[in-house]
Amino acid sequence: MSVDFYFDFSSPYAYLAAMKMDDIAMWHGREVTWRPILLGPIMERTGAGTVFDKPLKGIYLKRDVARTARLFGLPEVRYPEPFPFAALAACRAFYWLEAKDPNMAVSLAQRLFREAYGEGRPIASGEDVAKVAERMYVDSHELLAAIETPAIKARLKAEVDKALQAGVVGVPFVIAEGEPFWGADKLEQISRWLDTGGW
Amino acid sequence: MSVDFYFDFSSPYAYLAAMKMDDIAMWHGREVTWRPILLGPIMERTGAGTVFDKPLKGIYLKRDVARTARLFGLPEVRYPEPFPFAALAACRAFYWLEAKDPNMAVSLAQRLFREAYGEGRPIASGEDVAKVAERMYVDSHELLAAIETPAIKARLKAEVDKALQAGVVGVPFVIAEGEPFWGADKLEQISRWLDTGGW
Repeated sequence: MSVDFYFDFSSPYAYLAAMKMDDIAMWHGREVTWRPILLGPIMERTGAGTVFDKPLKGIYLKRDVARTARLFGLPEVRYPEPFPFAALAACRAFYWLEAKDPNMAVSLAQRLFREAYGEGRPIASGEDVAKVAERMYVDSHELLAAIETPAIKARLKAEVDKALQAGVVGVPFVIAEGEPFWGADKLEQISRWLDTGGW
Repeated sequence: MSVDFYFDFSSPYAYLAAMKMDDIAMWHGREVTWRPILLGPIMERTGAGTVFDKPLKGIYLKRDVARTARLFGLPEVRYPEPFPFAALAACRAFYWLEAKDPNMAVSLAQRLFREAYGEGRPIASGEDVAKVAERMYVDSHELLAAIETPAIKARLKAEVDKALQAGVVGVPFVIAEGEPFWGADKLEQISRWLDTGGW
């Protein structure tokens, strides 16, 4: 009875989905496995490009993100500078913390998303991530050292490979009891799938 | 109180949305303006590529199309050969027929979509389109001649330009009372928007 949630901190749609994941888990009595990944290597393999930097598409997408946030009852979406960004440090910090305490890692992910899209503050660098983690009493020196180790770098690479093998072609991506769903617009379908066992 | 529905006959997601457009119009007492366009020139401007021919993405998308069709109560989705295809003839036939009788043009669009994705039969060539139109007692010689005229070619070009100016960045794309929605996954949000006047 698993729900795997793949996301990139650089995606505002992943942020929208992330803010709903606890609800979905609660409504349906499921555990959600949070899996931060980097969309870059996924896009290289799937042949897609970034979208928010395309002029016409970017205008539509930002409007859609703002509208979906209102629909979800979230505060106005802000964008960190730089945007988009490579969420290497955030992903590595997540997996480092998860090995110690999975719940704390999820809490860090949620706080990072809120920092970026709720407050519009950067979460790109190790220092940015450490600042957010400090509010959870995570030692920043320990975190900054950990995310530079070969072991944690290899771990993130392995997670991106696993996501590709699982069929992840974009973010947010949810595999709900084996069934893949791509996009923040799929949350209602995911709920229905978990409710009914599929259709 | 307008609902503009932009689509490319080559998109199975546009087919899924098309099969729901009459329901949306009926539930909300709206007239839907059907606007077939060609995604090719839109993608050139917005920088997106085709997606169904990308290996990993294609697998996911076909699964998602099949699943959404089941959710919408539609028959199993088939794909015409060739797929994807350039729907030039279908678009031109639509605008030619619309000038005579708008309701017949919508009916032709629905029949073409069912021919392609319900029956898996080609609708790429003028002859393919004429065969479907014949079932509505449209003269095929007249249709085949009409879609080769400079006037109808210019008309289609003008419609694609108008779509770009309206902010259309992909298909299916619906502008519901000025509010843009992209994707077959947006139909529930469109219904809600028309119901409530927005959020």
